Amino acid sequence: MSAKKPNGRLQLRKKPQQERSIQRLDAIMEAAVELIAQGGVSALKMTDLAARAGVPIGSLYQFFAERAAVVRALHDRHTERVESGARRVFSTVTTLAEAEALMGDAVDTFFTTFRDDPVYLPVWLAALSDPDLQRLNTDHQARLTGMLCDIFRPLLPEDSKVDLETRVMLFVYLTGAVVRRAMIEDDQKARCILDEWKRSIRGTMFTA
Amino acid sequence: MSAKKPNGRLQLRKKPQQERSIQRLDAIMEAAVELIAQGGVSALKMTDLAARAGVPIGSLYQFFAERAAVVRALHDRHTERVESGARRVFSTVTTLAEAEALMGDAVDTFFTTFRDDPVYLPVWLAALSDPDLQRLNTDHQARLTGMLCDIFRPLLPEDSKVDLETRVMLFVYLTGAVVRRAMIEDDQKARCILDEWKRSIRGTMFTA
Repeated sequence: MSAKKPNGRLQLRKKPQQERSIQRLDAIMEAAVELIAQGGVSALKMTDLAARAGVPIGSLYQFFAERAAVVRALHDRHTERVESGARRVFSTVTTLAEAEALMGDAVDTFFTTFRDDPVYLPVWLAALSDPDLQRLNTDHQARLTGMLCDIFRPLLPEDSKVDLETRVMLFVYLTGAVVRRAMIEDDQKARCILDEWKRSIRGTMFTA
Repeated sequence: MSAKKPNGRLQLRKKPQQERSIQRLDAIMEAAVELIAQGGVSALKMTDLAARAGVPIGSLYQFFAERAAVVRALHDRHTERVESGARRVFSTVTTLAEAEALMGDAVDTFFTTFRDDPVYLPVWLAALSDPDLQRLNTDHQARLTGMLCDIFRPLLPEDSKVDLETRVMLFVYLTGAVVRRAMIEDDQKARCILDEWKRSIRGTMFTA
């Protein structure tokens, strides 16, 4: 997605071209999800991963230099899903009222998309403990903020005093925090949390 | 603070009674702050900690069973400071308007208290990666939420439909997230972030 490559050690080492290679990478990713869902990120071993995926260990290392690179690949899947979803939903927005309503909807969509994903939370937590992975997360939030600001800014009155950049960044950042908090609660409490967060957005996103 | 002891492995093993023992624990905590400020939590070694504190390694283990227990002690310092500060500030509140204004002030106080503390962020991040430490953090937020709700509830109209518990929990939880986000920015950007967050609180905390 980004042209820069600031995370060499976490980069996919080769892009699969041939059919067999593509299938192997798919098998590795699927096995990684299963192993992390079972035992968390810290228990993920490269040898176990190769065995579970049914690929030679050398083949695994052709793709990933280390475990954190596997975590990165899973992390990228999540952030790309969020960014492409946001682009699809917000690109046709024509009024601020519509934008604000869609931001409320996005909170629910984010929650329902990842609530039943057994690796979303473990991968997100693991990303916090690795500085390179942390940067991927900050970059993701910055891209999402930039994309939304580009869409919303032309809709604001020209003399608007709203600090759109900061406000949208906080929406992006805190919606992630709220949704992750809701995920560890039962359904009823989760609903209360999401509703309160949506309430705090309503009627306030674009007002001075 | 709590009567339960859910975190045996992270508990302080003995409470220092004698003067020499108290001094040793102080020296250990001071040395831990210095070492974490220099190299982060992951680089903290029990042997280095004993050496830096000038105490025998056996004496260190009399207090702390493992590194995570040292991290817990530092984490407790932070949360106790927040809780006692909140108790002091909010205990005399008599109106909801006053409460809301003080919540805005509390955002700034939290930031200025910990911005220059070189171990606040590393300890907080380390706590996320240990399930027992994570629970300490959730417990802290629950205590703070409970304390504030006890103070605010009598001030609400009897027929209020406000989900006070969820709203205050989100304030506590998200203020932490906002302040930690502001801490990694320069002063000007940090100010924008805190101001936007305070704006979103203003006039909305206790309204339906």
